[in-house]
Amino acid sequence: MTGKPVVLLRPAPQRRDRIFTPDTLRRLHDLFDVVDLEDDPSPGAVDRALPDAFAIVGQPDLPAERLRGAERLKAIVNVEGNFFPNVDYATAFAQGVRVLGCGTAYSQAVAEYALGLALDLARGITRGDRAVRAGTEEYTAAGNLDAVLLRRARVGMVGFGNLGRALRPLLAPFETAVRVYDPWLPAAVLQDAGVVPSSLEDTLSDSDFVFVLATATAENAHFLDGSALDLLRPGARLVLVSRANVVDYAALHERLAQGRFLAAIDVWPEEPIPAEDPFRTLETAVLSAHRAGGIPQAFTSIGDMVCDDLELMSRGLPPVRLQVAAPELVTRYRNKPVG
Amino acid sequence: MTGKPVVLLRPAPQRRDRIFTPDTLRRLHDLFDVVDLEDDPSPGAVDRALPDAFAIVGQPDLPAERLRGAERLKAIVNVEGNFFPNVDYATAFAQGVRVLGCGTAYSQAVAEYALGLALDLARGITRGDRAVRAGTEEYTAAGNLDAVLLRRARVGMVGFGNLGRALRPLLAPFETAVRVYDPWLPAAVLQDAGVVPSSLEDTLSDSDFVFVLATATAENAHFLDGSALDLLRPGARLVLVSRANVVDYAALHERLAQGRFLAAIDVWPEEPIPAEDPFRTLETAVLSAHRAGGIPQAFTSIGDMVCDDLELMSRGLPPVRLQVAAPELVTRYRNKPVG
Amino acid sequence: MTGKPVVLLRPAPQRRDRIFTPDTLRRLHDLFDVVDLEDDPSPGAVDRALPDAFAIVGQPDLPAERLRGAERLKAIVNVEGNFFPNVDYATAFAQGVRVLGCGTAYSQAVAEYALGLALDLARGITRGDRAVRAGTEEYTAAGNLDAVLLRRARVGMVGFGNLGRALRPLLAPFETAVRVYDPWLPAAVLQDAGVVPSSLEDTLSDSDFVFVLATATAENAHFLDGSALDLLRPGARLVLVSRANVVDYAALHERLAQGRFLAAIDVWPEEPIPAEDPFRTLETAVLSAHRAGGIPQAFTSIGDMVCDDLELMSRGLPPVRLQVAAPELVTRYRNKPVG
Amino acid sequence: MTGKPVVLLRPAPQRRDRIFTPDTLRRLHDLFDVVDLEDDPSPGAVDRALPDAFAIVGQPDLPAERLRGAERLKAIVNVEGNFFPNVDYATAFAQGVRVLGCGTAYSQAVAEYALGLALDLARGITRGDRAVRAGTEEYTAAGNLDAVLLRRARVGMVGFGNLGRALRPLLAPFETAVRVYDPWLPAAVLQDAGVVPSSLEDTLSDSDFVFVLATATAENAHFLDGSALDLLRPGARLVLVSRANVVDYAALHERLAQGRFLAAIDVWPEEPIPAEDPFRTLETAVLSAHRAGGIPQAFTSIGDMVCDDLELMSRGLPPVRLQVAAPELVTRYRNKPVG
Repeated sequence: MTGKPVVLLRPAPQRRDRIFTPDTLRRLHDLFDVVDLEDDPSPGAVDRALPDAFAIVGQPDLPAERLRGAERLKAIVNVEGNFFPNVDYATAFAQGVRVLGCGTAYSQAVAEYALGLALDLARGITRGDRAVRAGTEEYTAAGNLDAVLLRRARVGMVGFGNLGRALRPLLAPFETAVRVYDPWLPAAVLQDAGVVPSSLEDTLSDSDFVFVLATATAENAHFLDGSALDLLRPGARLVLVSRANVVDYAALHERLAQGRFLAAIDVWPEEPIPAEDPFRTLETAVLSAHRAGGIPQAFTSIGDMVCDDLELMSRGLPPVRLQVAAPELVTRYRNKPVG
Repeated sequence: MTGKPVVLLRPAPQRRDRIFTPDTLRRLHDLFDVVDLEDDPSPGAVDRALPDAFAIVGQPDLPAERLRGAERLKAIVNVEGNFFPNVDYATAFAQGVRVLGCGTAYSQAVAEYALGLALDLARGITRGDRAVRAGTEEYTAAGNLDAVLLRRARVGMVGFGNLGRALRPLLAPFETAVRVYDPWLPAAVLQDAGVVPSSLEDTLSDSDFVFVLATATAENAHFLDGSALDLLRPGARLVLVSRANVVDYAALHERLAQGRFLAAIDVWPEEPIPAEDPFRTLETAVLSAHRAGGIPQAFTSIGDMVCDDLELMSRGLPPVRLQVAAPELVTRYRNKPVG
Repeated sequence: MTGKPVVLLRPAPQRRDRIFTPDTLRRLHDLFDVVDLEDDPSPGAVDRALPDAFAIVGQPDLPAERLRGAERLKAIVNVEGNFFPNVDYATAFAQGVRVLGCGTAYSQAVAEYALGLALDLARGITRGDRAVRAGTEEYTAAGNLDAVLLRRARVGMVGFGNLGRALRPLLAPFETAVRVYDPWLPAAVLQDAGVVPSSLEDTLSDSDFVFVLATATAENAHFLDGSALDLLRPGARLVLVSRANVVDYAALHERLAQGRFLAAIDVWPEEPIPAEDPFRTLETAVLSAHRAGGIPQAFTSIGDMVCDDLELMSRGLPPVRLQVAAPELVTRYRNKPVG
Repeated sequence: MTGKPVVLLRPAPQRRDRIFTPDTLRRLHDLFDVVDLEDDPSPGAVDRALPDAFAIVGQPDLPAERLRGAERLKAIVNVEGNFFPNVDYATAFAQGVRVLGCGTAYSQAVAEYALGLALDLARGITRGDRAVRAGTEEYTAAGNLDAVLLRRARVGMVGFGNLGRALRPLLAPFETAVRVYDPWLPAAVLQDAGVVPSSLEDTLSDSDFVFVLATATAENAHFLDGSALDLLRPGARLVLVSRANVVDYAALHERLAQGRFLAAIDVWPEEPIPAEDPFRTLETAVLSAHRAGGIPQAFTSIGDMVCDDLELMSRGLPPVRLQVAAPELVTRYRNKPVG
């Protein structure tokens, strides 16, 4: 016994060494008495550590009865990125346990990727590279017939959570007007963030670039269906980087095959994408294998955030880096863990 | 005779209808007595119009003797983008003729493209799209082994003219430190632009992303040769969007083939790229057919700028949109016209 | 009974019509069944309304026994600006009641005022106005002997809560390096906000402009004492806009009387300032009667925030505009209500 | 004879040691063969130096005959801030001599001062300081009855030259809409600078804050007369920091005395302001003795700019820091030298 607060580390399906660099792991051990269950994810091992635990780092099953035995518990830190229904959140909140998430760790990576995809769609970068490799490239003006500036384009965002907040500043120097549809946010919050509150219809129909940044919930499956996609302007650029579940992919494919608009797609209803999936040969799309968020710098920032916030909490201060789960929302998400 | 100032329009190798939308062309005709020689580029036609011309829009040969007969001439407006040696600039300046260029018309397009290329290199967007089409894609973390953020990366720019000035603000939200090598600019100008004055060596060796934005002059051919390229960090990202003449492409290919660093290349020593050019199959490069600047919005902005500035000059005011050629530099450029 | 959720409105010492415009009050009544106790602040009136209350807007005494009877209570909204110890916060949190504050309503007003005071100290605006009225003004260079730019000055902030976060962006175009001392925040949070984490000593001794933005807590009374003030550079500019309790005013006066540095002071140990207080005649200070935050637009924004967040909560969504009180901090503040 | 280019230094009415720090003066002497006529401003001394001069730093009389003898002259650098009619500019331009000005040296100082004045008017800083000294101060809300935020206020600028360009970015974080009236600039230039082109009438009548930033020309004397001032909104804030000559001060005083709006005034028809001038006792004005621009950092930046640009020109490169005088405008200004 070190007298230091006990941190139970059981990160699966996340991996310890992906989120903690050697330095950060050393810091965690310096600050806390770490019970590392990376290699022993058995329920028994968790049960033995729980009564002394100050914090749990990971996503083990935490039903009410288990939580009730965790008398010293102050924090449950999700290090995967999504809140799963294997925790009795109501009991945790009633016991004064903070439920913390790491979703913001991926935001910058997703935002940069989304901007890269948008610029690709604006200028045909991927398509042009393909042409040079095929020997069919067109030079200068002849190769730029449908090229557009992002500057002063009309931009729409569907959803304005962590991703939208990270993307917004990247668009600032482009002087774009940005419409946002987000039914969870009042107009003033959007205005303060420098965007124009808008309906879903106007966001889709009045934008040159549309970013789909909405999380999946129990209610919003496939809300971007064929009729919603038909609102997009001819030649619009659509960037999908949040959750496949919010889009009807059959309807999407149909419209892309017709050349109605262009799209960059990072998330898929089924991953890996089936070998014969017709999306794989679309000329009107930039195709990406769920790579927007999970980059090394995103993962290691999780370890940093965990150390910073658990240190603050051990000093009696509130966490400031991880995201405090809202009791109202934590049970409503329907995101699947990323494989 | 309308009493309006005479504008001689002879835009070749530029095309009138590429730079003037119908509305802008109508405005030009409203403001001026336009002698349109798009379809008659003969020397005789130019000669007949010169004595009355208030402004020449285009790049006809203007030796001293011709200029001396142009007694009312106030402006020569280059609408191609590069100043060529077919004008006797010294005589023009001595006669009080303004020499104006349209280089800034392309800057935003090039800057957006350069950022798109940099994000592509950072995240492997083009390479990843290729993998999905080939059925060899890797998902999430496995597909992101060499992915990096642009945020807080070290950025270097070689040259800080119109292109650098347009690119700098696009990088601002990424909080990158930006080093610049530009031997024509004092430190204070660079600092005022929010960049760090630097030597060529430090710019190449201390940057994660390097943008080559230098113009070609009589002195700087191939200054990015093998030994300069060897200063780049392993895994660096190199973006070439200004002039092929400043780089030794054989040395560049050798290092890309070895996987020393990654590059996105828009300009080529020979265009079209030869069919069997080994660059065409490089996995470590994003390939582009001189498409950074010449997009429709760039071309039509030239017409706008011409109308705005000639109108100001006809009111006795200085031009403010086109770029005033510096007598010290106008004869030093060695850029070739874009085909 | 309307079926609408019941909101108990008892804003004293705040005033209803200061924070609710007629339009906003109408909106509150449209959304909720409002029990307005502005004119009946008796404990009995509160007690009668509590069992049905969905939210309390105001600062009535809420000991544990009272809270236990408020079975439907979801939110306690402080509309004064400071959390007082007349609420049993632990009980509220255990019952799942959100405790919300309006501190951010004043942040922009304070930040703008703080910048105005800093520019005044930089350039002697108030002092110069006094000179013109006295007929002793000096013109141009002669009047500017100690005038300095804010641009690229070194700025220090003591405390980086709501006020610092509102002030930081206002300084951005001045390209100032900003050091911050805030013992509640890890380095990464400060770096993400574009400031340099720093010790108190370095913040005081290495800054040309120092903003005191710290809240008063049980622990930090008079931490800016004589020896701390002696760390300020000769000629430094000190702006005090948060809480008088963190500064030793006798030590401050002594140094201002000696002309060691300049200060702008908005908060005072005793308000009104005593009639014969020697601060009233200091030439080295800009004097202000606790006016930084309480302006009409700040007050009416509180009403907006209350309506927006209670509406969200009535829809089962989390509040997003008011500030969620941290259980760890809510009992540690020692700010006095503003008269 | 050193072989270095000859620089003739005759800065009166500017002073050598105000614009050159010892380090900068040393640099000038290192780079050039300096003929320092600070202490011998006689015409003869200038005449003797002219034939060899590469550059003149100062404002000596330069009629055509004198210029014609200056065969090696490449630059005339005005270091006072205004172009005077004692130079035959047409001859200078015909000889290929660059005429350079230092007006931008003052821009940042004026812009910061103008913002300070605007914040003072917004919040009554000077007036409030006066009240504390008089013992008549009102606290918090009672002292803030007419206080307004700059955030999201409507801002108007009359004139958008160096001053407007320096002020615009300082306003950016306040998210103000900015209208500009400037008859010398086309709409696109204003839009690119992030402001809305506007008529004088709309600029005056639709703004909460109006900044007068226009230079004085042969045509615009007193264009802000009584009827123009009557367009201002009741309670508007007017900031005068450019030239007194553009305003009718009698009309201005009348309206300020009536309390129609508030003003901050830095420039005066007569300087010093007459002892009994009724402006001196106005409660509705912030009064300032032509102190907006002439601060030590502004003066010493002139010396830096001179060294940087003359060094570039001696290397055959164009100047980039000082302002190149427009032949079309240089004779139209009617600003008086600042005493």
